[in-house]
Amino acid sequence: MIKIGIVGYGNLGKGVELAVKKSHDMRTAAIFTRRNPQDLQMQTADAALCRYEALPDFRGKLDVIVNCGGSATDLPQTTPEIARDFCVIDSFDTHAAIAQHFDAVNAAAERAGTLAIISVGWDPGLFSLNRLYMNAVLPDGEDVTFWGRGVSQGHSDAIRRIPGVLDARQYTVPSPAALEAARRGELPASTIYECHTRECYVVAAEQADRAAIEKAILHMPNYFAPYQTTVTFITAEEMRRNHSRLPHGGCVIRTGFTGEGNKQERHKIEYSLSLSSNPAFSGSVLTAYARAAYRLAKQGQIGCRTVLDIPPVYLLDRSDQILRSTLL
Amino acid sequence: MIKIGIVGYGNLGKGVELAVKKSHDMRTAAIFTRRNPQDLQMQTADAALCRYEALPDFRGKLDVIVNCGGSATDLPQTTPEIARDFCVIDSFDTHAAIAQHFDAVNAAAERAGTLAIISVGWDPGLFSLNRLYMNAVLPDGEDVTFWGRGVSQGHSDAIRRIPGVLDARQYTVPSPAALEAARRGELPASTIYECHTRECYVVAAEQADRAAIEKAILHMPNYFAPYQTTVTFITAEEMRRNHSRLPHGGCVIRTGFTGEGNKQERHKIEYSLSLSSNPAFSGSVLTAYARAAYRLAKQGQIGCRTVLDIPPVYLLDRSDQILRSTLL
Repeated sequence: MIKIGIVGYGNLGKGVELAVKKSHDMRTAAIFTRRNPQDLQMQTADAALCRYEALPDFRGKLDVIVNCGGSATDLPQTTPEIARDFCVIDSFDTHAAIAQHFDAVNAAAERAGTLAIISVGWDPGLFSLNRLYMNAVLPDGEDVTFWGRGVSQGHSDAIRRIPGVLDARQYTVPSPAALEAARRGELPASTIYECHTRECYVVAAEQADRAAIEKAILHMPNYFAPYQTTVTFITAEEMRRNHSRLPHGGCVIRTGFTGEGNKQERHKIEYSLSLSSNPAFSGSVLTAYARAAYRLAKQGQIGCRTVLDIPPVYLLDRSDQILRSTLL
Repeated sequence: MIKIGIVGYGNLGKGVELAVKKSHDMRTAAIFTRRNPQDLQMQTADAALCRYEALPDFRGKLDVIVNCGGSATDLPQTTPEIARDFCVIDSFDTHAAIAQHFDAVNAAAERAGTLAIISVGWDPGLFSLNRLYMNAVLPDGEDVTFWGRGVSQGHSDAIRRIPGVLDARQYTVPSPAALEAARRGELPASTIYECHTRECYVVAAEQADRAAIEKAILHMPNYFAPYQTTVTFITAEEMRRNHSRLPHGGCVIRTGFTGEGNKQERHKIEYSLSLSSNPAFSGSVLTAYARAAYRLAKQGQIGCRTVLDIPPVYLLDRSDQILRSTLL
């Protein structure tokens, strides 16, 4: 049994815990939190529930740490820290900062002789893998990534920080026309801004200035200003009833050509996800890559990796022979 | 420049030749055929065109041989043969015989200290990869593979062997209802027979008994008997005008659950291909894996591999750092 340690016990950490339960070759041996462990309710009876600070005491007792902290502030600090003592994987998803995070984790892992895999999930993650495979087999082409319809937690949080907002949920929605154009290989030279709209559902305080809140959302740079955005005010009860889930998904579409001159042929590859719970699915992806990390570490591999480096066979708990006969 | 040798110069071999032309890090150095080389017209000016028997003379002069023979009789014999002298890849696609082919190629490659990759294409190939990734990230689920709408060359050939048939083209067509049911995770416990129909276009000799031909098709065991099949007689001119291309495609759909009890969440993953030329696209997939084979061989790896073993980063001619910053 692969002994898993989960760091961070929010939605993602709980997703990993449930996914580990579905895996016959692993068990959750310990969960680490920065909150008061007594306030948390685990779903695994025989796991230890500890403060994050106690993690080094488990050195040698856990095979892989799945770091479920946030990308903004947690992971850049904790993944290199954990790599000093453990094989570790995380879901770092700030695309622009991946190179820096990779270097920091790689340095820590190489120094300690441990293995790490970063940016595991669906984007970055499964979408990245598909972008790579599509680029490799259709080098003469263009790909585009659509996200949604789904809840963006970062955008929901941004709305919640506006004065007078009690709660908010933001759905990212791909434009149907842009999707169809992408499938025909005719997506106009538009930016990503024109391909997605943003639907915001907001619970405002009773005395709040709704017009001011709406204006603050629509003009928020980067988050909303460049997008077609709608704001709908709802009650706390409507929020609870209609928007308590965290669905997400999206697709990567690449069209491209083989051949040359008048012998050119057009091809289309599409990969799509429709997820009823983003953190539950992401937790399941992390769990598969935790297995791969364990095996690569067993082989003595050290340093940082991403999903792009991992041989697919390492993800499943079946012999190569069985994989060839059942999946090939 | 990676020096590629192509064995077999039919549609697939020509597809590889064109894909190599699109790859800046490779060139087709030689093409080998069992036909009379003087009868063939190459598209690469500076490649040698030789009889298959001359292949061993090129030992040490070619980096990777892409074996484009047929799966029925060519590849089981020639891939192990070629593996004695070269790094070799093929597109062996008889699913039921892959284990046997793998063992034969692996034995030859291990003895000779060469590297081989077998069963490269889209099914087996890209579809296999997707089945593996889907199984890994959604272990509690079901997947189904649909093929088409596209030309099945094996089924077309089978019709051509019926007395009185001058030419034939068979399209495999997935049932729209089965596709929709699969996407909802509700594909009934039907067999694959009920999920696809077979459209046959036949050019018959003038004096042929059309009713007998139709009966022979509809009752052909394995190929047509279990399927809903339609037969349409057309003229040679209609065949040339409307059925000269070899489109294909299909999709792999997996639905599955995370969580347990009343916390279960349903997810769907779909991977689809729409190809205007099956051999051109397959040739492009082979070319990407030829690059991977070259690199793995350079590292001293020996023996037989499949797409399931190959780390994705080996497929593209870009540094790991660039791949992480552009595709992750």
